[in-house]
Amino acid sequence: MRIGIFGTGAVGRTLGSRFIELGHEVRLGSRTADNEAATEWAGQAGERASHGTFADAASFGQVLVNATSGSASVDAIGSAAPTDLEGKVLIDVANPLDFSKGFPPTLSIKDTDSLAETIQRAFPQLRVVKSLNTMSADVMVRPSQLDGGHNVFVSGDDADAKATVRSLLVEIGWPADDIVDLGDLSSARGAEMFLPLWLRLMTAQGSAAFNIKVVR
Amino acid sequence: MRIGIFGTGAVGRTLGSRFIELGHEVRLGSRTADNEAATEWAGQAGERASHGTFADAASFGQVLVNATSGSASVDAIGSAAPTDLEGKVLIDVANPLDFSKGFPPTLSIKDTDSLAETIQRAFPQLRVVKSLNTMSADVMVRPSQLDGGHNVFVSGDDADAKATVRSLLVEIGWPADDIVDLGDLSSARGAEMFLPLWLRLMTAQGSAAFNIKVVR
Repeated sequence: MRIGIFGTGAVGRTLGSRFIELGHEVRLGSRTADNEAATEWAGQAGERASHGTFADAASFGQVLVNATSGSASVDAIGSAAPTDLEGKVLIDVANPLDFSKGFPPTLSIKDTDSLAETIQRAFPQLRVVKSLNTMSADVMVRPSQLDGGHNVFVSGDDADAKATVRSLLVEIGWPADDIVDLGDLSSARGAEMFLPLWLRLMTAQGSAAFNIKVVR
Repeated sequence: MRIGIFGTGAVGRTLGSRFIELGHEVRLGSRTADNEAATEWAGQAGERASHGTFADAASFGQVLVNATSGSASVDAIGSAAPTDLEGKVLIDVANPLDFSKGFPPTLSIKDTDSLAETIQRAFPQLRVVKSLNTMSADVMVRPSQLDGGHNVFVSGDDADAKATVRSLLVEIGWPADDIVDLGDLSSARGAEMFLPLWLRLMTAQGSAAFNIKVVR
């Protein structure tokens, strides 16, 4: 499958490398076609890896991933040609974190809205699925590194799009039983508002190598 | 120990009954001294149980518990004589849920503030510790009902107050290793902002009999 990733930060590169490992073709997109991190990544990640602008990534991908910072997401996706978004699944792994007042960040969107819903409203031709935003990049792509089962959430309005994301999560290494469907896209509010607790847990533990498990 | 509980809803009564089982004396406080739920509870819970106004509960308790609805908490605690709050530990188990627009509720306080901090600012003579607000009343008092370890959080500015709460949690049945110190009272923002995810999980699962475990 061809996967286009918006964003060349640690999350975009880590997900990109994992998808390459799994046999997919990946193009990382950034504001400029000669982004240094993306150029270095594509040089190391092998022949199925490429990079370009946000528009190039959108045009390339059959499935798209939003791994930009939340404040930049709508602009990044908006620089794609609208026809290159048509009907595509976009996995939104970003969080609307606002670091303008330091650490811990606050949320620029919350409570009665979410970044995922904001993207879906701005680009109705996409099928947005929120997932993977509740953990570090390293845990996203290597869930088995933690000691015991733990969960990843999916939120979205389109059942087929959620099924596509679920398949990719299983490919990445997530046991199907650990993938929890939270409901429609408005449930992304819950997944995004978990971040303040995640950040406090990271600080308390001094490590981002953790996740949560729903215990019944 | 004498424990005064603000609030006579399911959370207040469930915690009250558990503290009675453990040998403590408990007084439930409500707006009116003849609150029906509190009268019935005190009649069933045995000789160490009593009820009265919010002020009566505050005067009675060596340790206080806020189990009112978040929107009513400051008024409830404010009806106590200020000297009856002096130096006391208040365990804030409430959440600032706003049901005015239906289900799921939104949060009336969030992101840059929390209910716990709001209470602490309003009553600086209290030592507020946020805890137990991230789960159902039944899970609070019978953590072993779930299959496997899971966590309860504490947030607060006073180390002695947190130690008092930790001791009570262990008495209730929480293994010491499952009690996670999130940090100062501002970390209650994280614990309170978990509620939107908790509510979505409850809806998705059709049950409130769950909690989360931090997996490392």
